[in-house]
Amino acid sequence: MKTIQGIGASPGIAIGPAYRFQRMDLHVEARTVHDVDAEFARFFQALEMAEGQLRLVHEKARREAGADQAAIFEAQLEMLRDPELLGETQAAIRDQRLNAEAAWWSTVERFASILEEMESEYFRARAADIRDVGRRVLRILKGITEEPVQLTQSVVVLAQDLSPSDTVSLDKSMVLGFCTAGGGETSHTAILARSLGLPAVVAAGPEVLEIPSGTQVIVDGVQGLLIVEPDEPTQITFIQRREALARLRQEAFAHCKEPAVTLDGHRVEVVANIGNVEGARIALEHGAEGVGLLRTEFLYLERSTLPDEEEQYQAYRAILEAFGQQPVVLRTLDIGGDKELAYMELPKEENPFLGVRGIRLCLAHPELFRPQIRAALRAGVGYNLKLMFPMIATLDEVRAAKRIVEECREELHRDGKPVAESIEIGIMVEVPSAAVMAEHFAREVDFFSIGTNDLTQYTLAADRANAQLADLISAFSPAVLILIGQVIQAAHRHGKWVGLCGELAGEPLGIPILLGLGLDEFSMNPSAIPLAKQIIRSLSLPQCQELAREVLKLESAQAVKERVRERLPFLVLS
Amino acid sequence: MKTIQGIGASPGIAIGPAYRFQRMDLHVEARTVHDVDAEFARFFQALEMAEGQLRLVHEKARREAGADQAAIFEAQLEMLRDPELLGETQAAIRDQRLNAEAAWWSTVERFASILEEMESEYFRARAADIRDVGRRVLRILKGITEEPVQLTQSVVVLAQDLSPSDTVSLDKSMVLGFCTAGGGETSHTAILARSLGLPAVVAAGPEVLEIPSGTQVIVDGVQGLLIVEPDEPTQITFIQRREALARLRQEAFAHCKEPAVTLDGHRVEVVANIGNVEGARIALEHGAEGVGLLRTEFLYLERSTLPDEEEQYQAYRAILEAFGQQPVVLRTLDIGGDKELAYMELPKEENPFLGVRGIRLCLAHPELFRPQIRAALRAGVGYNLKLMFPMIATLDEVRAAKRIVEECREELHRDGKPVAESIEIGIMVEVPSAAVMAEHFAREVDFFSIGTNDLTQYTLAADRANAQLADLISAFSPAVLILIGQVIQAAHRHGKWVGLCGELAGEPLGIPILLGLGLDEFSMNPSAIPLAKQIIRSLSLPQCQELAREVLKLESAQAVKERVRERLPFLVLS
Repeated sequence: MKTIQGIGASPGIAIGPAYRFQRMDLHVEARTVHDVDAEFARFFQALEMAEGQLRLVHEKARREAGADQAAIFEAQLEMLRDPELLGETQAAIRDQRLNAEAAWWSTVERFASILEEMESEYFRARAADIRDVGRRVLRILKGITEEPVQLTQSVVVLAQDLSPSDTVSLDKSMVLGFCTAGGGETSHTAILARSLGLPAVVAAGPEVLEIPSGTQVIVDGVQGLLIVEPDEPTQITFIQRREALARLRQEAFAHCKEPAVTLDGHRVEVVANIGNVEGARIALEHGAEGVGLLRTEFLYLERSTLPDEEEQYQAYRAILEAFGQQPVVLRTLDIGGDKELAYMELPKEENPFLGVRGIRLCLAHPELFRPQIRAALRAGVGYNLKLMFPMIATLDEVRAAKRIVEECREELHRDGKPVAESIEIGIMVEVPSAAVMAEHFAREVDFFSIGTNDLTQYTLAADRANAQLADLISAFSPAVLILIGQVIQAAHRHGKWVGLCGELAGEPLGIPILLGLGLDEFSMNPSAIPLAKQIIRSLSLPQCQELAREVLKLESAQAVKERVRERLPFLVLS
Repeated sequence: MKTIQGIGASPGIAIGPAYRFQRMDLHVEARTVHDVDAEFARFFQALEMAEGQLRLVHEKARREAGADQAAIFEAQLEMLRDPELLGETQAAIRDQRLNAEAAWWSTVERFASILEEMESEYFRARAADIRDVGRRVLRILKGITEEPVQLTQSVVVLAQDLSPSDTVSLDKSMVLGFCTAGGGETSHTAILARSLGLPAVVAAGPEVLEIPSGTQVIVDGVQGLLIVEPDEPTQITFIQRREALARLRQEAFAHCKEPAVTLDGHRVEVVANIGNVEGARIALEHGAEGVGLLRTEFLYLERSTLPDEEEQYQAYRAILEAFGQQPVVLRTLDIGGDKELAYMELPKEENPFLGVRGIRLCLAHPELFRPQIRAALRAGVGYNLKLMFPMIATLDEVRAAKRIVEECREELHRDGKPVAESIEIGIMVEVPSAAVMAEHFAREVDFFSIGTNDLTQYTLAADRANAQLADLISAFSPAVLILIGQVIQAAHRHGKWVGLCGELAGEPLGIPILLGLGLDEFSMNPSAIPLAKQIIRSLSLPQCQELAREVLKLESAQAVKERVRERLPFLVLS
């Protein structure tokens, strides 16, 4: 038995045979070519095929692993069009009369090694991306068809580090967990593991690569351990821990349709964040008591024309029907920033996260906004629909948006269409100014929903997609928690309710703090609902209030998490 | 006559002919050339044309400006024949098969940076000459006939928006005022105009770009108007107003060295934002009582290597000497974001304003940070130097930065160098989290300086350089003012002082609010100091406190400004 210490990058325990993942060796031979044009043609054909493959992989990643994962392939697609990379390859073909394989690979290697020598983890990760794309083009040039790795049993995957292409080609249903020699908390493997809910240990060092496939191993994603050939007592201990975890999750699932009531009888709403009609079904299966955030972008993205009012009406209606009389909070279109529409030419912005997104875009483009409002007002008839505007920074914006809702309602009356009359209207609180001026906004709307992902990025002035800032960004930052507390108090003073639809709502360590701050509605990804309800049932309100008072006085996100763990040790197990 | 409404971004009135500024793109792209001889021919032809142009300019300068001015162009003519410069360029074309543009520009840059590093002022001036000649040849190679902006008369500059590099090429002594189609109160043009004390109107819309050069225009920076082809009565009215303003400023300037004491005897400090040694002289002439923000980027930007400790020491020392025992707050290096260093490869970020900038970059690159701290600690001996860190978001960052200061101090002790021992250490409050957690930060530092430009952009989640958001962004936003008030109160509770070095400190309408909120130190562009002091002398503290209480309850920036104008109508004239 041997224990290797790494960094726990995704919680959980995996026990099983190791599978040593190795990449195909793509040997490159340099030849002199005579027909430069023909070689150019081969090269560009390969680039085109690679682009086609990457588009498919991107789509698959988006479906299976979410937008963050998919973004990696977008970056790779851009590399395929990088003028320097292509220019140098062409120059090498033309001037040195090199074959495309050698010209391409030497260029890729040169770029990758420049990146690799940089201090920053971020750049070193980009080196892996450029090689990943490089190998894809090389395989095509060499006529090697990409084979997915065929796993015949469930395994713990060991690797140096997994590239995005590697992980797409893995059959994830056969993976129990990951352990990589390299990487960090923000490496691709770590992000993938968390999104799949699989345990992972990263940065475990080169020893990992010497473990032969088939060796029995344990991955402990909480403590960051890889245990090789565990002895029997160890194996038993970890099997028991894994089972305790599984039982907790099963138990939570068994009770997921029961309400979330604290030990002392305080009930809160636990609802789902969903992004399409299919999500409604999954949410209900997991015990959602409604929808706290219906993202409507699904109707707009990845298509070539604007959806019309009727199409939107049908989609909203289907979701509302699924939830019967339960509340469904529809967030109006939230594009701009990092989300683009192919059929709308939006100006390229220097800082898209600080740009024309959300309500800013909708107010500037009523042709986009009005059909959505009309569709929503029509779909809401007979259901419990609420409307919510994203990226509100000023009172003028809320008022302008509310005015448009009123105008649409009048239009529909004139058209003789049935209209939902008393719809609650709320805003996302995700821009710091909305939090600071919550008192004013509370007079203007029926409810707030705090978007902690964006609120955190603006409050800390740190792009949440920037891997270099991963350490800085945490919704547990006391500054963010203080703002959340102020928003809830301001709303309650005006008799308005407050939800929260960022990731914090579903975090085991976040739930007691939010309960203590007085949050009324917890909205999260459906898969997190059962455990969240179970955790709420294990807490008492006064205990949480005391905890919230304590953590607001702390100095760092780290200190906040530690304090919660200290006060509520049983949460560590989840 | 036609009147265009924009946003008044810098007060004052300018009357004169329009000059339509257009950007010259001198981006150099490296290409591989095949026909070396053809590239040689292109290069020599460009040199010949440049020589012809320079002979004309030389003759013109001799006639108009005398022999001394003309001598500069003689020197430039000689550079065109310099065997080393030409030889290296030819070698780069021949050996690296570089295009003439890239070969020439890289050679010019190398020569210029060698000259720049020399001790002698004479040689450093030659670096500018060599670049000037370099750009002339480059323009010819790129087929750009447009000359650099040679203004032969005083003009009102009209543009889409001006970037920092655009304004470098403008002869500011010939500019009467600015009017831009885009931009906002915090765009570069606005900031530049205020720092030059020139009137400016921004966000005036695309009509501005249709006005031909030479058209008579009036810029009214208070009312935000551009009047095109004014009739005679209008012209006379504005000439009179311009004279009244000039008298007010003269009066303010005459008293600028007297302290800023309110009617009821409350004294505040009025200090300067400066960016180099020359700025120190100007600040003192305008009555600065010290420096509230010494931007140190001037030592790093527009050069090809890092400045060493000694060079920094000399520069800081020169500035400290100019201010004697008056306080000088040195802000440590604040690059990243939109400011790049040519000699440091920084990753391209999706949202640079939410990226690795300020203290984040310095903590990640101690090789950048430590020489600056050492230079500052040495320069501070015998003077009233204070250190300030930019972009602080967390307590961990302040502590890490303070630790480095302590380490540098110990190193210097060991080296036997004299060190400033009891330096005050403060932070910029420009990230919302620092404002929200001001109570914690107040325990950790000696002072705060509120950076309203960035604080506003983060609080409203709106890029201040994004012209589309100009309406949204205002430091008069109640959310920003509420945060400023909280920061001042938290600091005072802990016996710490608070300065403000954003644009708001020098704004006539902002001064009474900030006085009322209890601000201790107003730091601004030197040209704004005389008027700011005059305004402070015309106010009473209780009146300002009452005003501050009122405006914090308002709903929008617009309402805040209106309220101040209503309560203090005389401010409109300034």
